[in-house]
Formats: sequence, C-alpha cells, structure tokens
Amino acid sequence: MPERFSPRPEDRFTFGLWTVGWQGRDPFGDATRPALDPVESVERLAALGAYGVTFHDDDLIPFGAPEAERDTIVKRFRAALDRTGLAVPMATTNLFTHPVFKDGAFTANDRDVRRYALRKTLRNIDLAVELGATTYVAWGGREGAESGAAKDVQVALDRMKEAFDLLGEYVTEQGYDLRFAIEPKPNEPRGDILLPTIGHALAFIERLERPELVGVNPETGHEQMAGLNFPHGIAQALWAGKLFHIDLNGQSGIKYDQDFRFGAGDLRQAFWLVDLLETAGYTGPRHFDFKPVRTDGFDGVWESAKNCMRNYLILKERAAAFRADPEVQAALTASRLDELAVPTAADGLTALLADPTAYETFDVDTVAARSMAFERLDQLALDHLLGVR
Amino acid sequence: MPERFSPRPEDRFTFGLWTVGWQGRDPFGDATRPALDPVESVERLAALGAYGVTFHDDDLIPFGAPEAERDTIVKRFRAALDRTGLAVPMATTNLFTHPVFKDGAFTANDRDVRRYALRKTLRNIDLAVELGATTYVAWGGREGAESGAAKDVQVALDRMKEAFDLLGEYVTEQGYDLRFAIEPKPNEPRGDILLPTIGHALAFIERLERPELVGVNPETGHEQMAGLNFPHGIAQALWAGKLFHIDLNGQSGIKYDQDFRFGAGDLRQAFWLVDLLETAGYTGPRHFDFKPVRTDGFDGVWESAKNCMRNYLILKERAAAFRADPEVQAALTASRLDELAVPTAADGLTALLADPTAYETFDVDTVAARSMAFERLDQLALDHLLGVR
Amino acid sequence: MPERFSPRPEDRFTFGLWTVGWQGRDPFGDATRPALDPVESVERLAALGAYGVTFHDDDLIPFGAPEAERDTIVKRFRAALDRTGLAVPMATTNLFTHPVFKDGAFTANDRDVRRYALRKTLRNIDLAVELGATTYVAWGGREGAESGAAKDVQVALDRMKEAFDLLGEYVTEQGYDLRFAIEPKPNEPRGDILLPTIGHALAFIERLERPELVGVNPETGHEQMAGLNFPHGIAQALWAGKLFHIDLNGQSGIKYDQDFRFGAGDLRQAFWLVDLLETAGYTGPRHFDFKPVRTDGFDGVWESAKNCMRNYLILKERAAAFRADPEVQAALTASRLDELAVPTAADGLTALLADPTAYETFDVDTVAARSMAFERLDQLALDHLLGVR
Amino acid sequence: MPERFSPRPEDRFTFGLWTVGWQGRDPFGDATRPALDPVESVERLAALGAYGVTFHDDDLIPFGAPEAERDTIVKRFRAALDRTGLAVPMATTNLFTHPVFKDGAFTANDRDVRRYALRKTLRNIDLAVELGATTYVAWGGREGAESGAAKDVQVALDRMKEAFDLLGEYVTEQGYDLRFAIEPKPNEPRGDILLPTIGHALAFIERLERPELVGVNPETGHEQMAGLNFPHGIAQALWAGKLFHIDLNGQSGIKYDQDFRFGAGDLRQAFWLVDLLETAGYTGPRHFDFKPVRTDGFDGVWESAKNCMRNYLILKERAAAFRADPEVQAALTASRLDELAVPTAADGLTALLADPTAYETFDVDTVAARSMAFERLDQLALDHLLGVR
Repeated sequence: MPERFSPRPEDRFTFGLWTVGWQGRDPFGDATRPALDPVESVERLAALGAYGVTFHDDDLIPFGAPEAERDTIVKRFRAALDRTGLAVPMATTNLFTHPVFKDGAFTANDRDVRRYALRKTLRNIDLAVELGATTYVAWGGREGAESGAAKDVQVALDRMKEAFDLLGEYVTEQGYDLRFAIEPKPNEPRGDILLPTIGHALAFIERLERPELVGVNPETGHEQMAGLNFPHGIAQALWAGKLFHIDLNGQSGIKYDQDFRFGAGDLRQAFWLVDLLETAGYTGPRHFDFKPVRTDGFDGVWESAKNCMRNYLILKERAAAFRADPEVQAALTASRLDELAVPTAADGLTALLADPTAYETFDVDTVAARSMAFERLDQLALDHLLGVR
Repeated sequence: MPERFSPRPEDRFTFGLWTVGWQGRDPFGDATRPALDPVESVERLAALGAYGVTFHDDDLIPFGAPEAERDTIVKRFRAALDRTGLAVPMATTNLFTHPVFKDGAFTANDRDVRRYALRKTLRNIDLAVELGATTYVAWGGREGAESGAAKDVQVALDRMKEAFDLLGEYVTEQGYDLRFAIEPKPNEPRGDILLPTIGHALAFIERLERPELVGVNPETGHEQMAGLNFPHGIAQALWAGKLFHIDLNGQSGIKYDQDFRFGAGDLRQAFWLVDLLETAGYTGPRHFDFKPVRTDGFDGVWESAKNCMRNYLILKERAAAFRADPEVQAALTASRLDELAVPTAADGLTALLADPTAYETFDVDTVAARSMAFERLDQLALDHLLGVR
Repeated sequence: MPERFSPRPEDRFTFGLWTVGWQGRDPFGDATRPALDPVESVERLAALGAYGVTFHDDDLIPFGAPEAERDTIVKRFRAALDRTGLAVPMATTNLFTHPVFKDGAFTANDRDVRRYALRKTLRNIDLAVELGATTYVAWGGREGAESGAAKDVQVALDRMKEAFDLLGEYVTEQGYDLRFAIEPKPNEPRGDILLPTIGHALAFIERLERPELVGVNPETGHEQMAGLNFPHGIAQALWAGKLFHIDLNGQSGIKYDQDFRFGAGDLRQAFWLVDLLETAGYTGPRHFDFKPVRTDGFDGVWESAKNCMRNYLILKERAAAFRADPEVQAALTASRLDELAVPTAADGLTALLADPTAYETFDVDTVAARSMAFERLDQLALDHLLGVR
Repeated sequence: MPERFSPRPEDRFTFGLWTVGWQGRDPFGDATRPALDPVESVERLAALGAYGVTFHDDDLIPFGAPEAERDTIVKRFRAALDRTGLAVPMATTNLFTHPVFKDGAFTANDRDVRRYALRKTLRNIDLAVELGATTYVAWGGREGAESGAAKDVQVALDRMKEAFDLLGEYVTEQGYDLRFAIEPKPNEPRGDILLPTIGHALAFIERLERPELVGVNPETGHEQMAGLNFPHGIAQALWAGKLFHIDLNGQSGIKYDQDFRFGAGDLRQAFWLVDLLETAGYTGPRHFDFKPVRTDGFDGVWESAKNCMRNYLILKERAAAFRADPEVQAALTASRLDELAVPTAADGLTALLADPTAYETFDVDTVAARSMAFERLDQLALDHLLGVR
C-alpha cells in the first residue's frame, strides 16, 4: 500500500534541475554541497514520484561547452528521461549567472548583450522542444536597475517587447508547440526589476504582437517579496487566461528571496493556493522552484524535495475536505459568496437607474448592519487546515 | 517679482478637498482639527497658486444630505470656483467611509451594496461632468478581503469588470467627455485589496468592454507600500498609454499609508518621478493626495499644501539641470543609454540568426568586462538633486 | 464532557475590553458596530471560558466622566467581576486617542502634556491595583515622530526614563505589588515610534532607576510589522527575565497593524510561540489583543474571541505532541540541539587556546560536510502542526 | 585649492578592504571584477583622502594560508600602511564564508565549530591589535535559523554570551586596548538572525560579564531592512553610551541587503544621520561598508568610494547650515523642542501629584489645540538638504 501523501506522476509534480542541484552558494558564503549530476537528479526525482524535470540551458550543459560535449550530455540526459519516464514539460534560459548579463539580457543597455541573449535563448528553445517542452519560462531577473538614470524604463519595455515578439515569431515560424511564461519578481538580484509583479507582466503581454503565445509563471516567494497575496495574484492570472505555469515554494515575508520548500513560509496562503489550483481548472505542472537549505547535506536535498510534494498533497486533501463540508457551504452562503456570483445588474443599466431600491429608497443603515460572518468562515478553514474537524 | 518655486496655474497643481480638509482622525486617535469649509479650501488653494480642486461626492455634500441642501452647496461651491478661477479636472466617489461599504462596493458580496455603489457613483459622475471634470477616479479601497474564503477573486473580478463596463456604457450614452482612472493600492483598509498595483490595474483594464475609456491613477505611497519603484510603475503606465491621472505624496517605506506631503518620504524617487513626468509628455494635472500631519493646526495644513507644489518645482528645476548638463549627457552615453534606444534586431530574425558575431564568435568575456559606469551617472544625478553642481 | 479545545480559567486566557469592544472605525471608515457595555463583555468572556479582562482607563470610564459617574461604573464593573469570577490581571492607560496626545504623552514636546499624561497614568494605576492588577502595560504608541527634527530622540529617551522612574517611585512608595510592561511597536500611528522592538525596550529598561520593576509586553503583530521573528523576540525577552506579559494576535506580514484573532496570520510562528510559552516556564496570562474584523456583527466578535482561545489550545496540543515524539527527539539530536546546550569552553579560555583540535588540527572540510539535518526536523514540525502524524 | 567636499584624514573616513574589493558575486551571478590587491586598495584609498582601512582576517590573508605566507602578507600590508599613513582603527573576523560556518559560529549547534570560531577570532584579534585597531567588530551573520526547531534561541544566547565573555576575558588578560562592537542584522544570509536590531544587541550586552567592553556597530542598511529609522536607532545607541563604531551605506527599503554607497537609498535619513553624528559627540571613524555595483568596472569602484565621502561632506555642510539658520531655531522653538529638554517633573513626584494644573484643572482641549508646527520645521530641513535656502 502506498504511503499516504505519496506523489504519483499524475499529480504532475515537477522540479528544476537547479533546485535539488543548488550547491548552497549565497551572497556571504561558498558552496556547501558538491555538484549534482543531472542524471542522478532525474533518477532520484523519478524514484520520489515526480512527473518531470525542467532546466536552464546551463544546468544541463556547462556554459561554453563544445558542441560534441553538448551532444553527449543531451543524449545521456535523454536516456535517463526515457529510462525513468520523467517528462520535460518546461525549459528556460540562464540569462543571469555569467557577468555578461550584469546589466540584463533582453533589456541590457549593451546591444551586443541583447543580441547574444536572444541567440542563447533561441538555441535552448530548440533543445526544449526537442525534449518535449511545451512551456518556455522567461525570468528576467537581471532586467532592471539600481539607480534612476541607468535604465530608461519605457525604452527598456520597447526592447523587452521586441525580444518577445522575435521569440514569438521564431516559434511560429518553426511550428513549435511552445508557449512562453514570464516570471515576475520585484527585486534581487537587481535593485528594481522590470515587470515586478504578476500584474505588470500580464499588462505587458497585452502589448505584444502575439499575446496569445505568452502567459505568466508566477512564483510564490516573488509575489510575497512585495507583500502581495499570492493566491489573489494567481486568481487574476487565471481570470486573464494566462496562468501558463507556476513556481511553488516558501517565503517568510518581505526579505531576500528564500526559496524554501513548499509548505514552509506562509502556510495559510499555501492552503488557499492549493484550494484555488485544484478547483479552478489549472491543468499544468505543479512546479517546485525551491532551494534545499544550505545547512543540510544531500539528506536534506531529497527530504525537502519529497516534502514539497507531500505538503501539496496534504493541503489538497484538507482543501477538498473544506469545500465538501456542509457547514462550510452554509458558512459560504452566510457570507454571501453565492451572491457575489450573481451579476450586479443583469437587468442592464437602464433598469438599474430606474430601480429606486438601489438608491432612492435604499436603506443604507439596515444593509450596513448585515454581518458578513467572515470570522466563522475563516475559522472553519483553519480548522480544516489543522485537521481538527 | 514672484518668489522662486512659486506655483502658477499653468503648472497644473491640483488638490483633493479631502487633503487639506483631513481632520486628523487615525486608527488610534480622534480628529485634531475642525472641519474645513470646501469654499475656504478653494479660496486658500487658489491663493497659493493651485490650478484646481478635486473631490469625493461626500467631501462636498454631506452623506445623505437632502436634495435642496445639495443644490445650495453645489451652487455655492461653483461660485467659489468661478470667483477664483479654480478648475475641477477630476472627481471621485466615496465608497469606503460608510459602514455599508465594509465589504466593498463594486465587489461587495452583498448585491444590494453593489447596486447602491454603482448608483452613488453614477450620480456623482453627473456632478463631476457638470463641474467640468474630464477624469473620474475609482479607488477601490474596500474591494478586498482579510481571509481566504471571504472573497472569490475571479468572481469578484467579474463583478469589477461588470461595474466598469456599466460606467463606460453610461458615459458613452450620455456623451460625456470623461475617462476613468483606477487607483491601485495593495492593502489598508483591507488586508489585501484587489488590483493591488499599477500592473494589476493595467492588466485588468485590457479585459473591459471599453478599455480606451479606462486608465490608471497611481499614487506614490500606494506603490511604495508594496516596495515597488514608483517611477518604474509610472513608466510602464505611460508605455501602455494609460497614465490618465496621478496622485503625488510621500511615504517612508513599507508600512501603513502615510500620505505625507510631496517631497517627504523617498526623495530620490521623487526626483526621478518629476524627471519622468516632465520629459515623457504627461500633460494631466499634478494632483496631490496627501494628509497634513495631525500634530499641526491649520498653519501646517497650508504650509504643507504650499510645499507640495514648492517641492515639485524645486525637483523640476533640478531634473532639468541634470538633463541639460553636458557631463550628464556624456555619462549617459558612457552608460550606453543611447544604445538601449537602438532596436536589438532591426535587421529581423533571420539576420540575427545568421549573424555569427551574435553568438558563434561573440566574445563573452570581453563584453562582460565593459563597465556600465552607473556609479558615476548616479552621483551626477545626486549632485544635481542636492544642487552642488 | 467539555468540547475539545474549550478553554478553562486555568488556561489563563485574558482579553482587553477594547478588543471585543472595538467598533470597527478605521482610517477610512466609520464604526460598523455599536458600543459594547463592559459588563456585557465581562459576562460573555466568562461564559466563553476566559480567565480575565484588562482595560485602558477610558475603556471602562468615558474620558472626562465626572467622579460620581466613575464610582458607579467601577462599582458595577466590580460586581460583574465578582459575579463571573473574572480576574483583572493587567490594566493600562489610554494615552493616544484624545488629540491632546497627538505628539505623544511621556515624550510629548509639550511639557504640559507630559505632566498630564503622568497624572492620568498614576490615577489609573490606583484603580488597577484596586481591581487586583499586578501588571501595568505601557504602550507608547504616540511617542515618536514623522519627521527628523520634530523629536530629539536622545532627549526624548531622557523624558521616557524620567516617566518610568517616577512611576516606579510611585508604586514603590505606595507599596503596590505592580510591575510595568512596555509594549514596543515600530510605527503606526506615528511614522516611527520610540522603542520600536522588543530589543529596544529591553535595552531601555536597563537604564532605569528600578529596572527590576519593568519588563516587556510584546505583541505578535507589532514585531511582525518590522519583519521580525516573534518567537525569537519572546525568547530573548525570556532570556533577559523580562517577559512580564504578552499580547497575542495575528498579522499578515509587514503592513498596517491588523490585529487579527490569534491563529490568523503567520500560523507557523504561532505554533513555535505556543511551543515556547508552554515549555519555557512563562506563567503569566495569555492575553489576546486583537480586533474582530469590522465586516462582522457581534456574531463575529464572539466567534473570534472564542477562536483565539481555541487556536491556542490546538497549537498547544500539537506542540506537546511534537516534543513528545521519539522521532522528533532523534531529529533534534541529529540536528545537534543537545550540543548547543553544552558550553563551548567549559574548560576555560586557557584550555581552549591550548587545544590544537580547536584550530591547529581542526579539519575544517570534514566538519563543514556534516549535515545539520534541518529539513527533516522542520517537516516533522509541520507534520505535527498539520496533525498528519 | 582642494576641491569642495574633498575628504581629509581628519574627517576619519574608513573603508573595509572587502568593500572596494568586492568582486560582484551575488546569489544569481558570478564575479564581474577581478580580485583587488589589498595594497592597491590601501594606496588608492589614501589617495582619495581616507583616514583608514579595516579588514576581515580572510580579506587580508587567504583562508588557510600557511604561516610564512601570512607573515609576508602582513609585512607588505604594514609597509603600505606606513607609506600612506593610513590607520587600521577596526578589524573583524570572517565567520560566514567558509561552509563550516553554515549554521553559525559562536552559536552553531556544532560545538566543534564554535570552538574553532572562537580560536579564529582570537587569532585575528592579535593581528588587529598589532596593526593598531581599538575596535573589533562582530557581525554574527550566520547566527540564526531558517526554521523553528533548528535553534533554541535562549540556549543560543547563552552560547553567544559565553563567546563574548571569553573574548572580553582574553583582551583583558592580554591588556589590549580593544573594545568589541556587535553589528546587528535582521536576516540574510539566515532566515532570521539573532540580535536582529540595534535594540536587541544593546539589550544583550547588558547581560555580559564585561558590558563596558562591548558596544554596537550599526549599519544603515541593516536597520532599514527591518523598516526601522536608522537615526533613531543611532540615537538610542548614543543614549546608552554604546555607539562604538558605525557602518555607513545606502539601502532602498525592506528587501535584500543592498550595500549601496553612502548617499544612495534613503537620502533624508542620511541627512538626519549626519546631523546627529556631527552634533552628538560621536568621535569614532565614519566607516563605509558598501559594495560598488557589480555592473561597473574599477572606474565605478573608486568613483563610489570617493562619493561615499563626498556625500557625507555635502550632508555635513547642509546639516550645519540647518542648525545655524535663525529661522530654523525659531521653528524648533515653535515646535517646542526646547521644552522637551526641560524635565517633566523636576519638582518631584509629590509636587506633580499636588499640582492641580497637571490634572484637575488641566484644560485638555486648549492644550490639544496647540499646533506643533512640524510641517514648517520639516520643510526648512528639506530646503537646507536641497540647498535652496
């Protein structure tokens, strides 16, 4: 009998090679773990019940590796995928580690860097498609500035649009079944990053030549670094039809990017997030973009990978129980959630204007006195989260 | 000879009646100043050199005032405007003070509240247009939640869209020359507010029936409450063609909404903001939405109103000097700002792919070694801000 | 049989009259609930299983009430206490609501205000002692500034010290069995408040004439408004022997003061807090200083009061199970928590200097490779919190 | 004639070797600049007008260098100091870069690490004294935790106390003229760091065996990462007699540790800080602990080092002008700053209690109506900062 909360491939849990492979180098300290062979990661993740892996070009193929080495690496990686059955639903480009990207990639002031960044991306798109990816993530972590004159933001957005238009042109011409997902982040490693939140990215997409090809890949911690409610942001992305991918992890409030395992950090938002993903029809991968704490050895790496999935499944069970509970359903009605779903003026503007009960005879004090009964509803949720009902 | 940094109407400085009229009630304390007659505010602001005033319906006409009283008030207000020459370029609705709005207005779970909120807004739109306003601001400060189940965000966004679609229909049918400006805010008074940042509001607008009628009214402090760079946000709004109005004030970082006078708070962002507004073709009012500190009497009220304008004019002078300085222009070139304005691939995708200098022979280490020279550029800006050049 | 997680007086749960009595006035909105009779609060809280109530002078006796009214009120309140068996273990002074305190109380620039504030406090200390209180809380919410020159902080700390020295002199002379507990807060309603964190308050106390009489009353949300780890702060207060009282509530990160019920906000910190309080020998009241959300009627008031206690008891049960679990104990050993409790150099400085294994032959790479095994330990905690073990 | 705002040694500006020597490695990117020879740094800084340099042991002597190499390096460094006249007023230990410190140093759970950390520190103290340092800084950046059970904070504080007691014993026994300065930081690289703010460090010091030997070394950005007002914190450190050293830099709000040059970030707090340091009798070094932005080459390194000093001198001139301005002095009186300096009850407790004007006949509304006139005062400060008076 499988252990309770044990993942299966149909749960669609995926991990970046760079997550379990993170060596623990941080701004004040050197690596605490040796490098991990991507093939070992594939095998371990498969054994843990994951559905797939994802990668930056440089995670798989060392930066600057000669062509022959590249082919060997890809072949060996592919064999591991075939052997384990792991999928590669997403890939992305490393446009941030090498010092050449110190001022950005698609919006670097240096045009040579921009051209190189596009070529590096296009090259990895070919590999991504070859390995079966249907989503290509773009985290523009270096697109930004530390000082006011260093970046003309409107001009930079022109360059950003140019880049995505070119990428869209490329995949269209190649006939690739690949969509892009922009990953917003407010700051770090730049003082301020362009497209800092889900909202900014969604708005930007609407000005592209092929907006249908581009969505978002929000990351838990990135939105929470701006103090924003992550489930609210995901809801707006879903509302816009743009949740193409998601990065799940943990963050303890507004501070440096922590990338804790999923379940650490804000547990209540994690609960509402899983509730939303499981009820709103999101069918993409549940992708973990986290860093096992650097105090731990490989024991902690695999422990935390396993627990990302475990915690998702625990929260999924709890959220389902919450929604199925008749008392919860009564409480939702008492809080008038059903009424929110009723159009405000299905009868149209004219009827609204002509309705005296909407203004002239509206009894403002009586309506104001209605309790929304939110305290009761929220405690029911907490009881379900804690498993005490 | 006019005093240096003295405002003139052509500077287009405007103030909300609720700003100078704020009585100083805060979450822990009672009012410290008596109410201010809107007519006195008009006269004082005109004398200080303002261009116009703006108002919430309830700022001008007490909530629930009978029709006759309303007419008298409007007539008297209008006379003051005529006498002083002050314009009313913008108006807005108070959908937050009365307890009936405790769970929101356009997205309240209670449908009765939503209908009332729309009627209250439509009613004030008529007055706004009558007084000459061409922008109608919508701050949805109560549209949000403190707990996860209390608001279904996707459904709430449906209701928000319904509201703006109805408002757009109304002004279109009436033939009004009036556009809407959504004012984002991340939190306070709700735990999390819908459309929390400029980005989220811009994205939302794209799903409306008449997106061309709706833009944003960003407020300095609101974006900074999420730790976001305000000039960056304004730049994206301008880039999207959506900066319909702006609220200028001061905020000291991520905390409660402080609404200090313009110039207090983050001075360097204020400098870059003025630089941007004055060079990017923004022609709307420079609207101050601030609260004179409650420790002060009316001396502080008028002092701070005057200084909002003074500080803008000081920063305008300094920003202009920065842009005109030949050393700055050389520094901008050294930092390759001119190169950012050059398309990355004007020669097209095929040429980019065929260009070996963009990848195959790209000398990544040589390019990486180029200094962006941002420290020099930023110090020149600081020198200009401080007036030491 | 009593319901599981039902409080009993011996749990020592207490509530401020101002918590359940909060009428829901916030910076942008009017009261949503009528005033609550303190006697009703006493009766309701007793019925819910509370141990005691606490109060600001003005919560019980309206500001400026004549002496005769005051006596009647106190008598009636006392009768309710006697009838219900509720204790009054703590009282405090309202030095923030009346506009006279707009620039502070003990550190107001205006000396007249400072003298009045001391007298108002001394007067309520008499009542506090009369009602049996042994702790007197001092929240200096208005002691601070919005601008740099408005307060000379060193001079203000002199005044703060003067105030606490006088209060200490008074209770000593009167022979009162009463200790003071300073409640830190970083900001709101002032831009920056003096003694902004637990640490600042602890340090200040050391410079008083009678430091033994003064400790701290930390509040969950106040420390979290500065992004600080609340259990860590409580641990330092305990370490210093200064945790004289505690205010429990909920806060969702760095933003305005939310005062949610205990259990809302950061659930994982709440777990660690209860774990700490229950194991570290804290014997004082578990005092809830929260505000029932203003969207709710009195149903939400009593629901949330009940759930503050319920959530504490749930977390207490879970924390106890965590500590009792043999796997947890093994994990703590694996993470070397037992070793942290061993003195580093019980053998003294000379021996340490003479020990080559501590430096000359210390094998830095081998020791660096030891895993701390924190991921495993933290998941065990999360499993216990969620009740899945 | 020297350029205006050019530093001289008597300004006592000092720089860490690790500041100009920072190679630009960040959590997402590799080094962008080559290593800098400490001797070159000494020469360059001397040429720029600095007074001294400071160092971590490993900045000067590569970690693990053999004894002979160490002697050569120290000799060569000393020669550079002699040649240039640069002082070494402070030194510190690197207890964070090597993976052995991944769980801390003085409070690592692993006792072996703690002993090694003490020995590494003691060893560098000898060198510090040899080079003339009188202050030894202790930044415990790795003393903390990412999860709740990983660190027992009370026990860890015992270990921290043990470490400082041993260090105090050592310098006392050696007869060194050396004091310690604890540098607080709230988080990064640990999720939560022990002694997170100035306040926590000040409070901790009071429990040491030799508190007189230990003070604080606050850093601008570290306090601002917790949203705290840096000048307020410095004022409390001065009030406690504990400002033994200071780290000046720039930070833009609550986010990752930015370490911008002094003058970047919060300019208004920088102004008030300089005003305070220059008027409150602080005589120690003005130490810059910053990182030249990694987008720049060595041009930016020396430019930013120069501008740290320049900005301090500009602000010093402006703050002096502010204090000397008769209008400012009048405004300070209008804001009753002089009254804050008058004891509240020099006449004693009995007189205060007997004074009817302090309570019985106190006219609360009249006093409440007094304006504090802070808006005027703050604008005068801003005018001086901007140089428009």
